[in-house]
Amino acid sequence: MKVDIITLFPEVMEPYLSSSILGRTRRKGVIEIGYLNPRIFAKDKHKTVDDRPYGGGAGMLMKAEPLYKAIKQLKKQAPEGTNPLVVMTSPRGKTFNQKLAKELAKEKHIIFVCGHYEGVDARIYPEIDLEISLGDFILTGGELAACAVIDAVTRLQPGTFVKDDVTAKESFEDNLLEAPQYTRPEVWRRRKVPAVLLSGNHKEIEEWKLKEALKITKKLRPDLLDNRPLKTSETKKKRLKRR
Amino acid sequence: MKVDIITLFPEVMEPYLSSSILGRTRRKGVIEIGYLNPRIFAKDKHKTVDDRPYGGGAGMLMKAEPLYKAIKQLKKQAPEGTNPLVVMTSPRGKTFNQKLAKELAKEKHIIFVCGHYEGVDARIYPEIDLEISLGDFILTGGELAACAVIDAVTRLQPGTFVKDDVTAKESFEDNLLEAPQYTRPEVWRRRKVPAVLLSGNHKEIEEWKLKEALKITKKLRPDLLDNRPLKTSETKKKRLKRR
Repeated sequence: MKVDIITLFPEVMEPYLSSSILGRTRRKGVIEIGYLNPRIFAKDKHKTVDDRPYGGGAGMLMKAEPLYKAIKQLKKQAPEGTNPLVVMTSPRGKTFNQKLAKELAKEKHIIFVCGHYEGVDARIYPEIDLEISLGDFILTGGELAACAVIDAVTRLQPGTFVKDDVTAKESFEDNLLEAPQYTRPEVWRRRKVPAVLLSGNHKEIEEWKLKEALKITKKLRPDLLDNRPLKTSETKKKRLKRR
Repeated sequence: MKVDIITLFPEVMEPYLSSSILGRTRRKGVIEIGYLNPRIFAKDKHKTVDDRPYGGGAGMLMKAEPLYKAIKQLKKQAPEGTNPLVVMTSPRGKTFNQKLAKELAKEKHIIFVCGHYEGVDARIYPEIDLEISLGDFILTGGELAACAVIDAVTRLQPGTFVKDDVTAKESFEDNLLEAPQYTRPEVWRRRKVPAVLLSGNHKEIEEWKLKEALKITKKLRPDLLDNRPLKTSETKKKRLKRR
């Protein structure tokens, strides 16, 4: 997968996107990340990319032209026959979630456009295929949101993890939070690991994990349960109970 | 405001947290950020902070003890009589939004605990005052989420912006997205700035902005409108219409 990022601040993104699992995945060639700074398309000697909003208002807006030229250049450089998806991270976008991450993970080439300052000239929107919002809060720029989307999407690429089932059992799969997890020691500051996890009985462990996942989701995020598809094992149980 | 961050990866956070508006705000002394790497509390010679989960499962978990010791040390170092809020960023937390950002902005001292790898030993939860989730998606660690919370909260500190009204007119205030914004030139690639924004008539401009904000919110995020408090100007109009 190829990811291009149009941003005024590549230096705040690269440390995150080159560390830990993401860095390893890039070194393996599973994902390729490039940056393009729209400032190189500013025409004046001060390389101005922002200006005051028409009609007044606080803060500065990013001008449309440098972003436009950056998008056009990246599209032109894309291999013939490919059609990169142009994504802008912005508060008015579609709220990002694991389902959207899975859809984006199927793309071959994504161009991220990061707004900054108080926003962007609205005339750039027709050049954007998809606007994504991380959530209902305000950040200084689109850079963090783009990092989050790239992180979530990269984790879903085959080849990121040695075992691909890592991502199949995480939170939000089947609309459930994860069951509590424990590691050594067995007793830590008088707090014990639940005995079932030490039993070695895989069937009981899986049943316990599902029960605990349901319990924790009901307690902390009951909204997730509303549209949850039932697992085969659960529908079986429901059927048995009905008899 | 004082912010302490317990993380294995301070180097991926600091570039973001020292750039742009955040960096300026830190240099002004409005917010003070420190890091504590829990690895210094690992006792073995390999400085191990993670281990395999009991009961099987993919990936590694962060051990409870190094996190516990880091929290205790930061609490001990806090000035007498202060009570830092211990926040962990994790998928099972309360979904972050602008309202929660405003609540957190009132705190004097927040300690962020960033999980990493596949999660943390659940026995650490009793040491956490508040769990926050950025949204329903999975990231490699809590670092990005903590950066986002710190960014959003810092923007709300008095003294961050020259004019404090910058943050009063952004998206999600009054449950509305922002009206489209425009900057120079007046005509760009045949796309014109709406004439009203060039009129200089502030009353008309404000009316247009509210109308457009309502329109764009209705189109892109109708869910935000459900519980929106009406502005004085709108209730007046409603009252007039009723006559």
